[in-house]
Parts: sequence; structure tokens; C-alpha cells
Amino acid sequence: MEIKVLHQIMDWNEDVSEEVKASLASHNICMINVMGSPGAGKTSLITSLIGTLKDRFRIGVIEGDIAGQVDAERIAGLGIPTVQLNTDGACHIEAMSIQHILPSLPLDDLDLIFVENIGNLVCPAEFRIGESLRITLLSIPEGDDKVEKYPLMFTDTDCLVLNKYDMLPYFDFDEQRVCSNYGTVNPDAPLFRVSSRSGDGICDLADFIAEKAGNSQS
Amino acid sequence: MEIKVLHQIMDWNEDVSEEVKASLASHNICMINVMGSPGAGKTSLITSLIGTLKDRFRIGVIEGDIAGQVDAERIAGLGIPTVQLNTDGACHIEAMSIQHILPSLPLDDLDLIFVENIGNLVCPAEFRIGESLRITLLSIPEGDDKVEKYPLMFTDTDCLVLNKYDMLPYFDFDEQRVCSNYGTVNPDAPLFRVSSRSGDGICDLADFIAEKAGNSQS
Repeated sequence: MEIKVLHQIMDWNEDVSEEVKASLASHNICMINVMGSPGAGKTSLITSLIGTLKDRFRIGVIEGDIAGQVDAERIAGLGIPTVQLNTDGACHIEAMSIQHILPSLPLDDLDLIFVENIGNLVCPAEFRIGESLRITLLSIPEGDDKVEKYPLMFTDTDCLVLNKYDMLPYFDFDEQRVCSNYGTVNPDAPLFRVSSRSGDGICDLADFIAEKAGNSQS
Repeated sequence: MEIKVLHQIMDWNEDVSEEVKASLASHNICMINVMGSPGAGKTSLITSLIGTLKDRFRIGVIEGDIAGQVDAERIAGLGIPTVQLNTDGACHIEAMSIQHILPSLPLDDLDLIFVENIGNLVCPAEFRIGESLRITLLSIPEGDDKVEKYPLMFTDTDCLVLNKYDMLPYFDFDEQRVCSNYGTVNPDAPLFRVSSRSGDGICDLADFIAEKAGNSQS
């Protein structure tokens, strides 16, 4: 019975995701689903990307958290329209929650919406939320075995960001292992080496997003 | 309907967890549920603890992973009875899986069983698996805001391990913030500062486990 219900929920989620996507398309908005482990640096990456992209795009943010609003306050402090989505214990965001919360953002005045998903390398990958683009983060301190151990998150993404790349000298991290495993499960998606702290690599990622956003708007 | 089914599953899980606990007690085994984010250092911590505890206790390991058996091979290489539990996509271990897999271990010849849960700071905390002791890991690179953002994992544990503590100089990590938040949600549980790599702090944690295991065996 458990599996049956799960399938029903996931089918329903897919339907709502398509509705959200159509609604965003009618506003010429590209929504980006940012996923990764707790502490992979999602908020810092979004903050850096806002700095790089804000002159080209009007940006909004949906901050997903199980509890609290630490990150939302950080983003709102940049003067960016931000809404907090608390999942009250749930380990991922579903499309229905996005559909519910989108009217809280000034949709006619936005080109890009970043959604920071719950810190979790498993469940968020299973639920589309109406996004046009998925970004998976893997931070250097997490280790080089994650593609093998959490395959869906790396298979079902449009790009992989190796974050905290400036920490490479301090950890036993075999970059070639990650590149090889990622290339096997997701051969057409690019990989970006980024340090949100120093800003290194942000421009290449921002250009990739800008190109995708331009395509989704055209 | 979703919530109703979830409650049924969780109630059922609690029942099975009690059965597992009773079965382990009849073998004088203390089972330890090790939880934390992907890359928090669970396998390395278990490996270090085995090194410190193996002269005092006969140890077995259950390695939980969504896919693969990288970690199980690492532990089995130490000559420790190890079984791999693949959840095939599920984001946590349930008591039923433990009940199913326990007979694969030589229970009459073990005092301690470490269970490495799926790397996930959310879902594993919701499911008891028959353990006598819970260890939550938070590694320094993950950041100092995790107790606020993932409260259940820190509330419902018997101790917190600040892992990769040797990395403190390289990250903006406000230790006082973590101690204060953890002390608020879980005032009676200890906190250990550990580097699995250097071995610093392992002895204190091992003594804590040994004491708990001794109590559960008496």
C-alpha cells in the first residue's frame, strides 16, 4: 500500500509541476531549483549569483527550510523579493507548495526565481516543482563518493556545481572520481568549479544560467 | 490521506523498533544509530571508533546506503562483520529493514552494532530502528546554523559529535552558536569535538559509548 500511495502522490506532483511551469512561462520567468546537502553552500551560491546576475535579470527567491528563516533574512537583506517556505518537517519541496506560494512574489516584475530546496541529497531530486533548470551542489568537504551513493541527484540535474572548491587542498577529494562518475550518469550536463566565498567560477555558472533563462524567455 | 498513511507507517515502525530492541537485548547487544548529512564523516567516525573499542567489545556494522557498497567494503576490510543494507532510493532506514537483516550478522558473537544510516539530516531522525543509542554528526564545513534548520535531528539524539573539528580554522563556524542552540533543544545530551582523521576526541566519545553499552548489557 505504501508504494501505491507514493506513486499517486508523485503523479499528482508531476501534474502540478507542469501547471506551475506553464504559469511561470506565461510570465516569462525562469525558475531554478537549487539542491544539495545541508551545508553544501546553497544560500551562499544564490547570494553570489544574485550579485553577478542582478544587472541583467530581475530576481526573486523562494527559501525552503524545514524550520526558521535564517537564509530568507540573509537574501532579503540584499533587497531581493524573498518568500520563506517552511515545510514543517518535510524533507523536500513539492510543486503544490510552490504553486501556493508563487502569488506572494511580484511575478510581473521578475525574470528569474531561485528556489533553495531543503538541504538533502536524496528526496528533493524526486519531486519536480515547475523549474526550468536544476542545479545540484556538491561541496568539496562532503567527499568524492557522493555520485555513486546518491545517484538520482546527479543524474537528474542540468548541471553540477563543485562548491567550496577553494577547500580542495585541505581534503582528500579525488576530483577525477567525481568527474568520471558524473560523466557516466549525466554525460551532457556541465560541471562548474566554484568558490562562493572568493567568487571564483561564479561568472561561468552565471553565464550558463543566463543563457538558459534567455532560451526559456524566447 | 497522505498524513494518515504516514502515521500508520510510523506507528508500525515504532512497534517493529521495540521488537528489534528486545531481540538485541536478549543477545546483550547495544545497537548504535549513526546519523548525519552526506559527507559528515559517518564511515570515518565508525572506523575510528572500531579502532578504539575493538579490544573491549566485539563489533558488527550495518552499512546503510541508497546504492552501492563503498563504505561496507571499507569496514569489512578491517575484519569486522559487516552487512550492506541498500534502501534502493529510500532516504532513511526503517526498523523492518533492520529486523530483516540482523540474522545476517553473528549475533551471539557481538556486543556492539554500529548502523550507519543514510546521509540525511532530516528523515532518519523520524524512524527508530531498535537502537539503544543515537549519535548525530555535524561536521564543521556544514556550517553553524544546522541546529536551527534541522531541529529534530539534534533534539532526538543521545549525543552530538562536532566532526572534522580540525577544519575549524578554515571555515566561518561559530561554535558558540551551535552549543547554545543544541543546549536549548537537548540540554542533557553531551557534545563531543572530534577529528576522525587525526583521532582527536575519539577516546572521550568511545568512553561514552562504552559506558552506555555496559549499562545496556547489565
